Amino acid sequence: MTVSSPGNGVEVSRGLRLDEIVAALGGVLEGDGSVLVSQVASLLSAGEGRIAFLASSKYRQQLKTTRATAVIVPPQFSAETSLPRIVHPNAYAYYARVVALLNPLRQRRPGIHHGAVVKSELRPSVSVGENAVIGERVHMGENVTLYPGCVIGDDVVIGDDCVLYPNVVVYDGCVIGRRAIIHAGAVLGGDGFGFAKDGERWVKIPQIGRVVIGDDVEVGVNTSIDRGALDDTVIGNGVKLDNQIQIGHNVSIGEHAAMAGCVGIAGSTRIGRRCTVGGAGMIIGHLELADDVHISAGSMVTKSLPRAGQYTSIFPLEGHQEWLHNAAQIKRLARLAERVAELEKKLEQRENTT
Amino acid sequence: MTVSSPGNGVEVSRGLRLDEIVAALGGVLEGDGSVLVSQVASLLSAGEGRIAFLASSKYRQQLKTTRATAVIVPPQFSAETSLPRIVHPNAYAYYARVVALLNPLRQRRPGIHHGAVVKSELRPSVSVGENAVIGERVHMGENVTLYPGCVIGDDVVIGDDCVLYPNVVVYDGCVIGRRAIIHAGAVLGGDGFGFAKDGERWVKIPQIGRVVIGDDVEVGVNTSIDRGALDDTVIGNGVKLDNQIQIGHNVSIGEHAAMAGCVGIAGSTRIGRRCTVGGAGMIIGHLELADDVHISAGSMVTKSLPRAGQYTSIFPLEGHQEWLHNAAQIKRLARLAERVAELEKKLEQRENTT
Amino acid sequence: MTVSSPGNGVEVSRGLRLDEIVAALGGVLEGDGSVLVSQVASLLSAGEGRIAFLASSKYRQQLKTTRATAVIVPPQFSAETSLPRIVHPNAYAYYARVVALLNPLRQRRPGIHHGAVVKSELRPSVSVGENAVIGERVHMGENVTLYPGCVIGDDVVIGDDCVLYPNVVVYDGCVIGRRAIIHAGAVLGGDGFGFAKDGERWVKIPQIGRVVIGDDVEVGVNTSIDRGALDDTVIGNGVKLDNQIQIGHNVSIGEHAAMAGCVGIAGSTRIGRRCTVGGAGMIIGHLELADDVHISAGSMVTKSLPRAGQYTSIFPLEGHQEWLHNAAQIKRLARLAERVAELEKKLEQRENTT
Repeated sequence: MTVSSPGNGVEVSRGLRLDEIVAALGGVLEGDGSVLVSQVASLLSAGEGRIAFLASSKYRQQLKTTRATAVIVPPQFSAETSLPRIVHPNAYAYYARVVALLNPLRQRRPGIHHGAVVKSELRPSVSVGENAVIGERVHMGENVTLYPGCVIGDDVVIGDDCVLYPNVVVYDGCVIGRRAIIHAGAVLGGDGFGFAKDGERWVKIPQIGRVVIGDDVEVGVNTSIDRGALDDTVIGNGVKLDNQIQIGHNVSIGEHAAMAGCVGIAGSTRIGRRCTVGGAGMIIGHLELADDVHISAGSMVTKSLPRAGQYTSIFPLEGHQEWLHNAAQIKRLARLAERVAELEKKLEQRENTT
Repeated sequence: MTVSSPGNGVEVSRGLRLDEIVAALGGVLEGDGSVLVSQVASLLSAGEGRIAFLASSKYRQQLKTTRATAVIVPPQFSAETSLPRIVHPNAYAYYARVVALLNPLRQRRPGIHHGAVVKSELRPSVSVGENAVIGERVHMGENVTLYPGCVIGDDVVIGDDCVLYPNVVVYDGCVIGRRAIIHAGAVLGGDGFGFAKDGERWVKIPQIGRVVIGDDVEVGVNTSIDRGALDDTVIGNGVKLDNQIQIGHNVSIGEHAAMAGCVGIAGSTRIGRRCTVGGAGMIIGHLELADDVHISAGSMVTKSLPRAGQYTSIFPLEGHQEWLHNAAQIKRLARLAERVAELEKKLEQRENTT
Repeated sequence: MTVSSPGNGVEVSRGLRLDEIVAALGGVLEGDGSVLVSQVASLLSAGEGRIAFLASSKYRQQLKTTRATAVIVPPQFSAETSLPRIVHPNAYAYYARVVALLNPLRQRRPGIHHGAVVKSELRPSVSVGENAVIGERVHMGENVTLYPGCVIGDDVVIGDDCVLYPNVVVYDGCVIGRRAIIHAGAVLGGDGFGFAKDGERWVKIPQIGRVVIGDDVEVGVNTSIDRGALDDTVIGNGVKLDNQIQIGHNVSIGEHAAMAGCVGIAGSTRIGRRCTVGGAGMIIGHLELADDVHISAGSMVTKSLPRAGQYTSIFPLEGHQEWLHNAAQIKRLARLAERVAELEKKLEQRENTT
């Protein structure tokens, strides 16, 4: 059986048997382990040869009607299906691993490709894409993959098994840990935005810190992480950054934090472990966010947040006419509060006099 | 007469006669069709050899005083000028076509230029810029132009007459329709932001869908469109995206929608036909926007919008001191509403007792 | 003494004597001018061989306890330390210049490097990085440095001493003044977002203006500046733009303005001299901002601002539950104001009747 995966054209020759998956990833097999699955799908859209998953009771009804060949379920829902199944307490994370198993990343051939310019000594397992440029004294681990057009400055360190997609730029002296995935157009180590005023002019403060990125970090398309002014900008292990994000100089992001697209973090702010920031969330400079702080999409953080929890600062969306009416009152809100206080006082006075 | 166009250095040898323009683009000629125009201008700034346009009655007064050589006007204003003119009901769209006629895009020579690496068979009409890289099994239509530094993955499809400006990246398997214009640094097909939690770690969910872009789409500078998780991210025919935009995985954008700079659309959201989003508008994931929904600049959309119309969510701008006073009351707004309700109750009680 | 600077690996062989610094940068030397400093640091973190600075009275206490070898102080604090010191009224700007002195930028060798494609005649002092591409009729001043992967269109002008970091793109016809620093992935001169509606379709209006940038401008990573529609987009002398910024067509930015990351300025807006915009500030199109207007981070400007001052439009951040309560009232705010007015009226009537 030859199945073409929907997206990237990689062929999975025949799929995998359910028992092969369990052998590779663990979990408990229930039902016929010899069925073949060649691709994942949602419970709703799955058909012949697909494996689906149930992660929350919300989709329980779909479990009864799915046309999937097999499913991944947590123990509490296992009895609700007679399909061949893999039982695992974290069905969603298991599903993620099955996707990876069924859709192996296409590997680029090791070696230095046409038109690349390499000024450092690299291991034979490294793949340097066409027209990439690598500076002097660069240290790269095993199995690093650089796609075409990447530009790596001097004195850069890149750990084992990193993948840098096309046209990534890493400025001089930056450090990337193991297994990083850096998407196309991302730029690590550009100058932080540091100037001193001198009359009406700005005097540039050279930015001499680095960007230091831990292990298992993903950086999205066209995201930028600035080098530190004096000390380093530090991205902890396991941090995931989406596209179009801006991280200012000397920011520190704790392990396993995650930030959605278009987020901005201004200089010297420290973000705790496991924090999340929704899309277009913005955090001003020199703040400190505790571990497990979660910022809602579109929110603007203007003060330190010493306690875990979710924080929000969105003006509610309305039809434009209603918005006009309500927004007009914002500018009189302090006065409105005063007027209410005056009414309360008046009424109280009258209570007392009658 | 040799006139240099203001911007891009292309020479229009002598300009065009008004009757030549009408022959090319239609419309009704009134007055002397032999006058030469070599460039467009606004009614206010136009001089000798320029053609201007009037699209709305707002600028009617300028029609009387303009020093343009010719004008484009809708029928209802034609009698208000004695200048040689082209009469057309949509004077603005006509003007757009005249700009194109008088300022032809400089064509790059067909062929594969110096330092480009091409692993697929391309038609002779295709132009591949210097140091561009094109993967395997790429299908390109006629007259496709790739500027220098573009990187096109494997199994990509690009339709006739597309133009990709420098350093555009297209990941494996993506599909671009005909006549697309993709500006410098845009990235199509980067991984969507998909992770499953496993303890405090994030497990990457491989993104195996594609980006599929229709005909006549424009994508701005440094904009990113993520590939789908399982299914595709779909951009409809005629969609126009400005710079620095982020489109998440599995988003679907209806035909002829337009989005200004810095917009973000989170994953799986479906945008209707002809929708517009103003600059920095943000739409969270898994929503549905009906056809003809218009989002004001800077607004945050946090719920589905099943009805056409304009929607807004901006905190009104004020001088910082006034803002401080009014914003302070926001945090007491629910309490203020309660206090007003208490006052109403008290007053009503007293009405009843007196 | 050999000291490695913290970030970029440049070696400063022995540091500089305090009197050497004063000879180079001015200021008044007090104390032992023969002490050697090899790097800057903050008062708090400084140790042997470091020079720190005091700019505001806020850190005065640290002046007494710092372990720095020397300090830079304004005259009013000079008596508060016995350390060797440089006295200068603008200690912070002086510090910026000391950082530059101690951390000279690594110079790239002049000449055209491997794989670059150059179609114009350049001076011998120009350095063109690996795999960069330079179009026809490009004029470059002395000592211009282009890092690898830059793509410069035809008819571009770049002034003396400019530095363009990797993968910068400059479209045809744009003009950059002297001493500009353009960071990686920035794109100058992409098409402005201009379309005319024709039924439900958008007709592209070719963008034939240019981008014209003054002297001493810095442009951040992945920032985009669009070319003008007819006239030019103009960036004044000394303007500093951070990363991920979007400047629309025909915007004009006055001298010495500064904008933090993720800012967006829509088309045809005119920004005065010395204006600043905080991170993610957004300004809609066709507005006019006076000189010395300052926009707070995250604020949305929807009207012209004819007077200097600071302006803000942020919804205050709260814990999500409190936000829910207060935000819900926004949609009833106009009604709340009416209810207060009714209460006032009622109470006044009763005052008059009793």
